[in-house]
Amino acid sequence: MSAFRDQTAIVGIGYTPFSKSSGVTTLTLALRAIAAALEDAGLSAKDVDGLATFRVGDSVLPMVVAQSLGIRDLRFHLDQFGGGSVSHAMVGQAALALHAGVAETIVVYRALNARSGFRMGGTGRPLVDAVETQYQAPYGYFTPPQQFAMAARAHMDRYGTKPEHLGQIAVQQRAFARDNERAMMRAPMTMSDYLAARYVVEPFRLFDCCLETDGAVALVLTRAERARDLRQTPVLIRGAAWGGGQTLYSNEIEDTNRTAAADMAPRLYAMAGVGPSDFDLAELYDCFTYSVLVQLEDYGFCKKGEGGPFVASGATARGGAMPVNTHGGFLSEGYVHGLNHVAEAVSQLRHTAGARQVPDAELALSTAQPGYVAGSTAAIVLRRDAA
Amino acid sequence: MSAFRDQTAIVGIGYTPFSKSSGVTTLTLALRAIAAALEDAGLSAKDVDGLATFRVGDSVLPMVVAQSLGIRDLRFHLDQFGGGSVSHAMVGQAALALHAGVAETIVVYRALNARSGFRMGGTGRPLVDAVETQYQAPYGYFTPPQQFAMAARAHMDRYGTKPEHLGQIAVQQRAFARDNERAMMRAPMTMSDYLAARYVVEPFRLFDCCLETDGAVALVLTRAERARDLRQTPVLIRGAAWGGGQTLYSNEIEDTNRTAAADMAPRLYAMAGVGPSDFDLAELYDCFTYSVLVQLEDYGFCKKGEGGPFVASGATARGGAMPVNTHGGFLSEGYVHGLNHVAEAVSQLRHTAGARQVPDAELALSTAQPGYVAGSTAAIVLRRDAA
Repeated sequence: MSAFRDQTAIVGIGYTPFSKSSGVTTLTLALRAIAAALEDAGLSAKDVDGLATFRVGDSVLPMVVAQSLGIRDLRFHLDQFGGGSVSHAMVGQAALALHAGVAETIVVYRALNARSGFRMGGTGRPLVDAVETQYQAPYGYFTPPQQFAMAARAHMDRYGTKPEHLGQIAVQQRAFARDNERAMMRAPMTMSDYLAARYVVEPFRLFDCCLETDGAVALVLTRAERARDLRQTPVLIRGAAWGGGQTLYSNEIEDTNRTAAADMAPRLYAMAGVGPSDFDLAELYDCFTYSVLVQLEDYGFCKKGEGGPFVASGATARGGAMPVNTHGGFLSEGYVHGLNHVAEAVSQLRHTAGARQVPDAELALSTAQPGYVAGSTAAIVLRRDAA
Repeated sequence: MSAFRDQTAIVGIGYTPFSKSSGVTTLTLALRAIAAALEDAGLSAKDVDGLATFRVGDSVLPMVVAQSLGIRDLRFHLDQFGGGSVSHAMVGQAALALHAGVAETIVVYRALNARSGFRMGGTGRPLVDAVETQYQAPYGYFTPPQQFAMAARAHMDRYGTKPEHLGQIAVQQRAFARDNERAMMRAPMTMSDYLAARYVVEPFRLFDCCLETDGAVALVLTRAERARDLRQTPVLIRGAAWGGGQTLYSNEIEDTNRTAAADMAPRLYAMAGVGPSDFDLAELYDCFTYSVLVQLEDYGFCKKGEGGPFVASGATARGGAMPVNTHGGFLSEGYVHGLNHVAEAVSQLRHTAGARQVPDAELALSTAQPGYVAGSTAAIVLRRDAA
C-alpha cells in the first residue's frame, strides 16, 4: 500500500450554509458547494472529470450534477449506497481512481435536506431493504438513536461509563463550535445544560444526538504532484482503509461495544505509517456522543472501556493533546454526513481554521461511522504537505 | 493507465439457476452464486476480503453477505447505487482496489428477484429520487421500454433502421442461447416469430425487450500474479473505463442516438492498447435490441447509423467476425444486470463455452448500459492470459 501513500491530495473544500430549511433542491445545494470548492482550489468546472457521492435518503445523482456543470464526458463516477458508514470511503474511492490514472480531478460531494427533506431519524420510510430490516422492524427497532442507545447503555453497564462522560463530548465540541461561523449551534453549553435536556432515547439526551441539517459539502481531489501547482497548501491522503463485517441487520453483533474500526485501524495505520499518538487532531464521526467514545477506544487512543475517563481528562478538548471534532461535529456544526469532518480536517491542516486552529497541525484522522449498525466503515489519514 | 493494464484478473465465476420465481431471498441467491464462483476459483470464503455490488430495486447489502460468509474483517466494500449503467463499474472498482493493494480477493456479485420481486419495468415504485424524475413523471414517461423506444424510433427515422435490423439482434442472440444450458429462452426463433410478436412499446416488440429474471451471478477477482497460481486460466482485466455526462433525467440529451460510450470508448481502447477490430467477441448490455445496435456504432464497430446493416451482415452472429452476446444476452439467457455478460466473456476466454465457443477467443469487450437514460456508463476489456 505504500505505493498509494501521499499520492493524492485534497485541494479544495466548499460548503453551503447549514440550515433547517434550505428552500432549494439537493441539486442546487450540491452545485453551490461544488462551485465553492472549485473556487477554493482555483479550478473551474471544466477541470472536473470525476464525481463521487453517496446516498441514503436525500441525494442527487452524479450525472445530473455533471450535466448541470456542463461536463460532457465524465471519466469517473460513483454513487455509493450507504450512510455515514461509507462517507470516508468516497474519499478513498476517489483516491484509488486518481492513483490509477482513471481521472485527473474528482469532486466528492454530499448534498442533503436532512431536516426539511428525508429525516434519517424517522421511521416512516425504510433506509434499506426488507431483507436487512426483517429482524428489527417487528420489534419497533428502527432508528439510529434507538440502535446506538443500546450500545451506549451496554458500555455504561460494562465499563462504568457515566452520563457526564457522554456529556463531556457534547460540551467539548460545543466549545469548538463557538468559534465556527458555519456552526448551527454556537450558544454556550455547560454540563448542567447537557444534563437538563430531555431524553430522546435513554441514555441519550437531546445533546447526545446529532443535528439534522440541510446543506452540502464538496471536496476537490487530484494527484499530489498536480496539487502542488494549485492555490492551497495540499492536504495529502496518506492512507485510506475500508472495514466491516458484522451488521446489526443480522442481529449477530458479537460485541456491541467493539466496532469494525477496531479491526480496520491497525491496517490504516500500517498503510499510513503512523500510530494513534502521531495525530494532532481527529475528526470522528459523531452521529451520537457515544460514537466518538467508542471510536476513541477502537482507534487505539485509549484502552477499551476507558473512553469515558479519556474524554474527561481533557485530551480531546480545545488545548488537549489531540482535539476531536474541532468544527463542533455533527453535534454542533451540522450534519453533512461525514464530509464536513473531512473539510474541517483540511482547514486545520492548511492552518486556516482561525480561532479554533490546532497549533502546528500536521496529521489528522477522519472517520466514517465505525461499523455499528450497517457494519461497514472507512477512514482516512490526512497530512499537511511538507514539500 | 498502463500501470493498471493486465494487473488484475477474474479467476472465478458463479451462477444460480435463472428463473421467474426463485422462491428465495436475494441473500440466498447471492450466497449461492458466490459459493459457486469460489468453488470455480478453487478458493473459499476465508479467502474473500472484499465485496462489491450495485443496487436499484432488489439487492442485498455487502455487509449482510459478509456476515453470512463468516467474514469478520472486510478490507473493501462497495454497494453502488445504479442499474445497468454501473454494472461494469463494479469490476473496474474492484480492480482499482486490488491494484492499490487495499484487498487481495474481491467478490463482485449481483443478486435480484427481478421478476418475482422488484420489476424494473414497472411504474409503481420510483427507481430514483423525485429530483431526477421531475421532468418525466408528469408525462407518464417512466419505464426503460418507454425511454429506449423513443431512441430506437429516432434511429429508424434518421438512419433508415428497420424492424428487421432489431429483429436480427434478437434472432442472432437466440441462436447462441440454444447452446446455453442456463438460458431461459432456448426455443428456436425466426424473423417471422420476432415480427409476429406483440408490441410492448412501439417500435419494440416483445423480443426486443430483455427478460425479467430471478437470479445471481458472482465474479472472483484477484491480482494477476496470484491468479496464475489458481485453478482456472486467468482472464486479465486489460482495461476499465467509466463514462457519462448527459442524462435523460435532465431532459437535455443532445443526440438521442449517441451515448456516453462514444466518448468513453477511445479512452478505454487507449488504456487497453486495442482497437475495435482486435476483439474476438463482445458482450454488450442488451436491455433492448436497440441498446446493442447503438453500442456497435458508439464502440466503433461500424459507423454511426450503420448498426442495422452491420448486424444484417452477420458480423455479430455465430460464426461472424465478432460475435455479440454469445450467451444469448438479457434477451435470451436472462437478466442479471450485466454481470452475466462478464461471466460469459470469462467462459469464452477460458475456452470453456462448449458448443457456443468462439474459436481461439483471446480478447473480449464487455459493456454496461451505454449511458442513455441514467447518463453513466462503464466497460471493460478482458484478455485471456498469455502467460
